[in-house]
Amino acid sequence: MSSTYGDNLKLSIFGQSHGTAIGMTLDGIPAGLKVDTEKLQEFLNRRAPGQHDYDTPRKEEDRPEFLSGLLNGYTCGAPIAAVIYNTNTRSVDYSNLQDCPRPGHADFTAQIKYGGYQDAAGGGHFSGRLTAPLCIAGGLCKQWLEDRGIQIAAHIVSIGGIADDPVYLDWVNPDFSAICRDFPVLNSEAGKKMRQKIAEARKNRDSVGGIIECIVKGIPAGIGGPMFGGMEGKLAQAIYGIPAVKGLDFGSGFSGSYLLGSENNDDFTVNDGKITTVTNQAGGILGGITTGMPIVMQVAVKPTPSIAAKQQSVSFKEMTQKQLQIVGRHDPCIVPRAVPVVEAAAAVAIFDALLGN
Amino acid sequence: MSSTYGDNLKLSIFGQSHGTAIGMTLDGIPAGLKVDTEKLQEFLNRRAPGQHDYDTPRKEEDRPEFLSGLLNGYTCGAPIAAVIYNTNTRSVDYSNLQDCPRPGHADFTAQIKYGGYQDAAGGGHFSGRLTAPLCIAGGLCKQWLEDRGIQIAAHIVSIGGIADDPVYLDWVNPDFSAICRDFPVLNSEAGKKMRQKIAEARKNRDSVGGIIECIVKGIPAGIGGPMFGGMEGKLAQAIYGIPAVKGLDFGSGFSGSYLLGSENNDDFTVNDGKITTVTNQAGGILGGITTGMPIVMQVAVKPTPSIAAKQQSVSFKEMTQKQLQIVGRHDPCIVPRAVPVVEAAAAVAIFDALLGN
Amino acid sequence: MSSTYGDNLKLSIFGQSHGTAIGMTLDGIPAGLKVDTEKLQEFLNRRAPGQHDYDTPRKEEDRPEFLSGLLNGYTCGAPIAAVIYNTNTRSVDYSNLQDCPRPGHADFTAQIKYGGYQDAAGGGHFSGRLTAPLCIAGGLCKQWLEDRGIQIAAHIVSIGGIADDPVYLDWVNPDFSAICRDFPVLNSEAGKKMRQKIAEARKNRDSVGGIIECIVKGIPAGIGGPMFGGMEGKLAQAIYGIPAVKGLDFGSGFSGSYLLGSENNDDFTVNDGKITTVTNQAGGILGGITTGMPIVMQVAVKPTPSIAAKQQSVSFKEMTQKQLQIVGRHDPCIVPRAVPVVEAAAAVAIFDALLGN
Amino acid sequence: MSSTYGDNLKLSIFGQSHGTAIGMTLDGIPAGLKVDTEKLQEFLNRRAPGQHDYDTPRKEEDRPEFLSGLLNGYTCGAPIAAVIYNTNTRSVDYSNLQDCPRPGHADFTAQIKYGGYQDAAGGGHFSGRLTAPLCIAGGLCKQWLEDRGIQIAAHIVSIGGIADDPVYLDWVNPDFSAICRDFPVLNSEAGKKMRQKIAEARKNRDSVGGIIECIVKGIPAGIGGPMFGGMEGKLAQAIYGIPAVKGLDFGSGFSGSYLLGSENNDDFTVNDGKITTVTNQAGGILGGITTGMPIVMQVAVKPTPSIAAKQQSVSFKEMTQKQLQIVGRHDPCIVPRAVPVVEAAAAVAIFDALLGN
Repeated sequence: MSSTYGDNLKLSIFGQSHGTAIGMTLDGIPAGLKVDTEKLQEFLNRRAPGQHDYDTPRKEEDRPEFLSGLLNGYTCGAPIAAVIYNTNTRSVDYSNLQDCPRPGHADFTAQIKYGGYQDAAGGGHFSGRLTAPLCIAGGLCKQWLEDRGIQIAAHIVSIGGIADDPVYLDWVNPDFSAICRDFPVLNSEAGKKMRQKIAEARKNRDSVGGIIECIVKGIPAGIGGPMFGGMEGKLAQAIYGIPAVKGLDFGSGFSGSYLLGSENNDDFTVNDGKITTVTNQAGGILGGITTGMPIVMQVAVKPTPSIAAKQQSVSFKEMTQKQLQIVGRHDPCIVPRAVPVVEAAAAVAIFDALLGN
Repeated sequence: MSSTYGDNLKLSIFGQSHGTAIGMTLDGIPAGLKVDTEKLQEFLNRRAPGQHDYDTPRKEEDRPEFLSGLLNGYTCGAPIAAVIYNTNTRSVDYSNLQDCPRPGHADFTAQIKYGGYQDAAGGGHFSGRLTAPLCIAGGLCKQWLEDRGIQIAAHIVSIGGIADDPVYLDWVNPDFSAICRDFPVLNSEAGKKMRQKIAEARKNRDSVGGIIECIVKGIPAGIGGPMFGGMEGKLAQAIYGIPAVKGLDFGSGFSGSYLLGSENNDDFTVNDGKITTVTNQAGGILGGITTGMPIVMQVAVKPTPSIAAKQQSVSFKEMTQKQLQIVGRHDPCIVPRAVPVVEAAAAVAIFDALLGN
Repeated sequence: MSSTYGDNLKLSIFGQSHGTAIGMTLDGIPAGLKVDTEKLQEFLNRRAPGQHDYDTPRKEEDRPEFLSGLLNGYTCGAPIAAVIYNTNTRSVDYSNLQDCPRPGHADFTAQIKYGGYQDAAGGGHFSGRLTAPLCIAGGLCKQWLEDRGIQIAAHIVSIGGIADDPVYLDWVNPDFSAICRDFPVLNSEAGKKMRQKIAEARKNRDSVGGIIECIVKGIPAGIGGPMFGGMEGKLAQAIYGIPAVKGLDFGSGFSGSYLLGSENNDDFTVNDGKITTVTNQAGGILGGITTGMPIVMQVAVKPTPSIAAKQQSVSFKEMTQKQLQIVGRHDPCIVPRAVPVVEAAAAVAIFDALLGN
Repeated sequence: MSSTYGDNLKLSIFGQSHGTAIGMTLDGIPAGLKVDTEKLQEFLNRRAPGQHDYDTPRKEEDRPEFLSGLLNGYTCGAPIAAVIYNTNTRSVDYSNLQDCPRPGHADFTAQIKYGGYQDAAGGGHFSGRLTAPLCIAGGLCKQWLEDRGIQIAAHIVSIGGIADDPVYLDWVNPDFSAICRDFPVLNSEAGKKMRQKIAEARKNRDSVGGIIECIVKGIPAGIGGPMFGGMEGKLAQAIYGIPAVKGLDFGSGFSGSYLLGSENNDDFTVNDGKITTVTNQAGGILGGITTGMPIVMQVAVKPTPSIAAKQQSVSFKEMTQKQLQIVGRHDPCIVPRAVPVVEAAAAVAIFDALLGN
C-alpha cells in the first residue's frame, strides 16, 4: 500500500497539503528524452487553482524545482526528482477538524489508519493538492509520448448532470482541436450551462461532480497483456490514484452492457495496408492489449466533499454526534481542474506500458 | 505485463483454453488457514458451464488437483499450486480462426503481440476458461475472509438492459440472503425476463451483456491507503483481470457524479460506540481506505463477443476483408457465470490488502 | 516474502519435497522463443541425484511435464507452467523429525514461522529438491540466452578445502571447454582428490561443502543499473534463492579487498573497434552495469547439514535437549549437483535483466 | 532496474553527485514511529567526509531537510521525503572525464547505457555521495528497529590486508561496546596499522579496500522465507546497492565451505525456556528465515577506484588508448565511511522484512 506506481517506471509521490513541500520521484526513465519545462509549466497551469471563476480563489505557485535527473534539457538516466514548496498555506482553517471528520473526506479513514498521527491539515497526503506532483510526472510522460506520436486529451462530458453536446469525441478519429481551450468541453454553450451549475452550487454552499472522457490516440497495437497485465487494470490503478475518482470504464463500458454482441463487436477492416476496426466500442483494448485504435475512457468524479453547508459528523474524542461547518475556500467543482490530472495519470500508465514492451 | 497479481500474496495464473491444463500458484499465504475443498468445489460449480439453459452445453470438470501448499486440510506456508487438466477440448472448432480474428476477441491483439506464435485455439490464454483458476484462488481467499467475518456476494443488476427490481442491495445493511440461489438476482421475476432476453439472443445468433454488483461486508475500517495504494485501484486491477469486464465503479460511482455534494456525502454517526456513516454513497471507501461500511462495486460485462451471426473480419495472410461465421458452442451471455468470478477477484484483492495491514 | 523472482519475468516455484508435485510457472516470456526439451532434459540430468558415487542413491525422475506456455516447440506468450510429480518419496524416513529439528536445516525456523502447520517431510518447501523446478526455469533461460550468444558455465573451485588447479577460469577469455564433463573441475586430478574427500566424509558420517565459480560470457555491455538495480544485487537475489548458498562475490570480490586500487582497477583498451578492459577484476560489472566482459561470480555452498552422525537438538514438545540421528540417504556433498543450479539461477537473473533493457 | 528498494516499504533514492540535491523518499512506513533527528544527524555524521586524516578533505553538510512524512517528531503515515542540497561542488575537477572513463568507475558503463546523456560530473548518480540518502533511510529504520529491541552494528574486519584482532565479534553474544568509537575496529592497535596502511596508499597515489562485518542482534526468529524470499537475498539486494561492495557472505560463509558438516552445523539447545543454537555458523539464518540468533554478514569493499596515479584508459570520441590522471580530492580508502552505510542498508532490509511479517 503506497503512493508508488509503475511496473517499469517507478513513480513515488510525497507531500502533505500544508507540509513543507510536495513532490515526486520518477525512476526508470531512459536517458536522452527531451524535456520542455515551459511546456510542462503550461500543462501544470491547467491544473492550478485561482484562475477561473469556478474554482477556489487560492493562488498557489505550482512551479516545480527539479532536483535531479535532468541535464541540459534531457533526461540523464538518473531518477528524476521535483518538488514544489508550499507557500500559501493557512493551517488555521483546519485546526478544529482533527477531532471532527468531514463527510466524504479521508479524515475519518486517516484517523483510523494512522491513529491520530496523520497530518490532518488540509487533508494532508489525501489532499487534491497531491495531484500537482502527479501532473509533473504525467506532464513529462505526455511530452515523451508526443515525441513518439501518441497524444492524450481529456474533456468534460458532464457536470452536475449537464451533459456536453456532442457528449463524446469520435472514438475512431477523435479531433482534439474540437475541445474548447478555456473550459474543456466540445460545445461552449453546454460549457456555459455547466459553469452556471457550478456557480449555483457555490451560492448554495454545495458542490457538483461530473464525468471526464480521456482519449489516447496514436498508440501502437500490441501494448499490454492478458488478465492482470491488461491495459484496463493498468490505467485503472493510475486513474483511481486521483482523489475523488469513483468510476472508470473503457469504450462503450457501462452503456455497452445494454447492447447486443452484434452491436458492441467492432468489425475488422483493412485500411491502407493496416488492420483497424470500423467502430471502436472496445475503446482501443481487446484482451487487455491495445488494438491501435484510440484508447477511450470515461472517468466519474464525485462532487467535491468540501461544502460550506452544515453537515452531521462526530467527535472522535467524545464519540458523540457533532455538527460541522467547513470554513475556508474550496472548489465547488473540481472536474475542470481534474481534466489535466486524468491526462497525467493516463500518460504515466501508457508510458509505463510502452517501456515494458 | 503478466498474469500475476498481488502485493503481499502472489497469484500467478497459467494455461490456455485447449492446452494440457490450466491452473494457478498462490504464494505468500500464511500457514494454518483452514481449507474446505468441498466448499471450494461448490464455489467453482457456480462458475462451471453446462448446468443451465442459458449457457453453453459444454461439460467441463472444473475439479482442481492441489499439487502443493496444503497439508491435512490447512495451508502449510508453502506456495499453493492447483491444476485442472483439460479434457473436453475440441480444437477443430477453431482451426480456421488463426488467420481470421473474431471481432471483440483478443485474436487480433494476440496476433500482433505474439506474432503468430500464440495458442489461438479457443482464445488460448485469453479464454474465459482462465477464470476457473482465478476462482480457485478467489474461492480460497473467500473462505479465509469468511473465517475473519468478511463476506462477499455478487448479484446481477441487469442483463441486456433488463434491470433487476430492486436494482441494488441496501448498501448500509446488505442482506445477502435476498439473492436468489439458482439465478443470482433479487427479484426472480426480473430474473425470468433476463433469461428470456438471453434465450432470445441465442435464437438470434446474438449475445447480451450486463452489470454485476459486488458487495464486501464485515471488512474492518482502515484497510488500504492513499493514491495508488487505494482500495479502488487494487480492486480494479483484480476485476479488470476478468476478460469481458469493461467498466467498474464504487458506491454511487457514475451516478454519484450527477448528485450534489450534500447528496453524495455520507454523514457520520455513532452506533453502539462505533463510528459509521448514515448512508454509503462512498461504497465503503474514503481516501482509498475502507470506512468499515460495506464495499460496493458495479461491474460492467460486455456482451459475449462470440456470436453465431456472420461478421466482417480480415485475413491476416491476404490482408483483405473476409466474412467470418463462428461455429461451436458459446454462451449467449456470460454474466451469470461471471458473478462468482467477480466475487473471486474481489476476494483475492481484499485478502491481499488485509495481509498488508 | 515469497518463492517468486523477477522484475520483468515472474518465476514462481512451488512444491514440497514429499508432496504431490513440484513445479514452476514462468510468466512474462516473449512469444516465439525456441525450446529444445531434450536439451533441457540433459541440463536437468546434471542436477539429478543417483548418477554418481558421490551423491545419494535415490533415483528420481526429474522429467517435467509442461502444462502451458509452449506450442509446437516455441513459447506462445502465455505463462509457462511445468510440473514434476513426486514418485520416489519415503515419508517414513522423516516421520520423527517433526518434533526434533535437524541442525543446519530449516526445520526449526519453519516450525517458528509456520507454527507446526509446515510440511516437515523431507524439509518440505525448503528441500534441495525444489532446485529441480529452478533448473527447469533456468534451463529454459539458458537456451534463450545461448540463442543470443550468451553462455553460462559453472565449475567447482574447491570442495572441503581441496582446491582445483588452476582454481579459476581466465576471467577475460574463459574457455568453457576446459571444464571436465563428468565432474566439473578444470583439473581432473584435483577432481579425484575432491571425490576422495567426499567419500571420506560419507564414511565418517559427515559432509563437506565447497565453492563454485560461475561465468557468463557474451553478455552485452550496458545491462543493469545503479544502486538497487545493479546486476550484483539482481544475481544475488537469484543465487541466494538456492538452499545452502551462504556466500557470493563478484570478480576479485573478497580477495580484491586485499589489493591496491592500482592492482584492482581494470585498465581500458580498444580491441577491434570495441572498448574492453585488459583485466577483469570487476567481474564484468561496474556501477551495477555490465561492462561486456564476462560476469564472474564465486558461490559458497555450506556442507550438507544432513549428516549421519549423532547431533544435539531439542524436542519442541518437551522443550528439552534431545539427541538426534538422521537416518535415510543423503548427499555427503551437494556441491557437484549445485553446479547446474547456480547456472540456472544466474540464467534466470540474466535473462530477466535483458528483458528489462 | 531502478534505485528503488523494498517489498513492504518503498525506498527511492535520487540525485547526482554534483546536481542540485540528493535525497530519498520512503513510503509504506506506519504512522506513529518516533523520529529523533539529532540522533539521525549523529548517524549521518559517521558517514560524512572531511572529519578524519584518512579521508577526503571535502567538507559537505549532510544535513537533511525533511519535506514530508514527519509531524511533531513522529511519522504521520505519509511518504517521508528528505533532501540534501549540494553546496560544495567543484565540477571543474571532472570536466575532461566525459570522454575518458576512469578505470574501476561506472563512467564507461554509464556512457554505454545512457549514450552520453548521463551526468558524468563526480560520477553522477553512481557516486558514493548517494549513500548519504541511503543513510537517511537507514538511520531512520535503525531507530525504529532499536525501539523494537533490535540493534545493528558494523565494524572493520580488515583494510588492505591488515586484519583486526580479534577479527570478528562473538557471533552468539556480540558485544557492540567492544567496537572502538572513532575508528570502528575491535583492537585500536590494529586500527592504527590500518590507518598507516591508508596513509601509505595516499602517499603512493593509490588506494586500499577492506572487509566489514555487520551484525544484527535482537531480531526475533521467524522473519524471512524460503528461496527468493530469504533474508540472505533480501539483505544482499540492499547491501549490493552500496557502490564498491563486491562480496557478501553470511555467518561462516566462504570459510564455512572449508568445514565439515559436523563443524558447521549449529546444535540446538534450550536456554531459559527458549530454543537457541550453541554456535552461530549459520549467521542467524536457516532456510532464509531468522533463527533468533544474531544475523552475521561480511561485506567486501573494493579499493577506491579513484587513484591519483596515471592509468590507461580510452577516448570515446577517438576510440584510441589514452592516459588518464585523476585530479581532485578522493578517499584513499572508503571502508571506514562505508561502515555506517552497511548498517544503513542492513537496517532498511531488516525493517522491510519485519513490516512483511
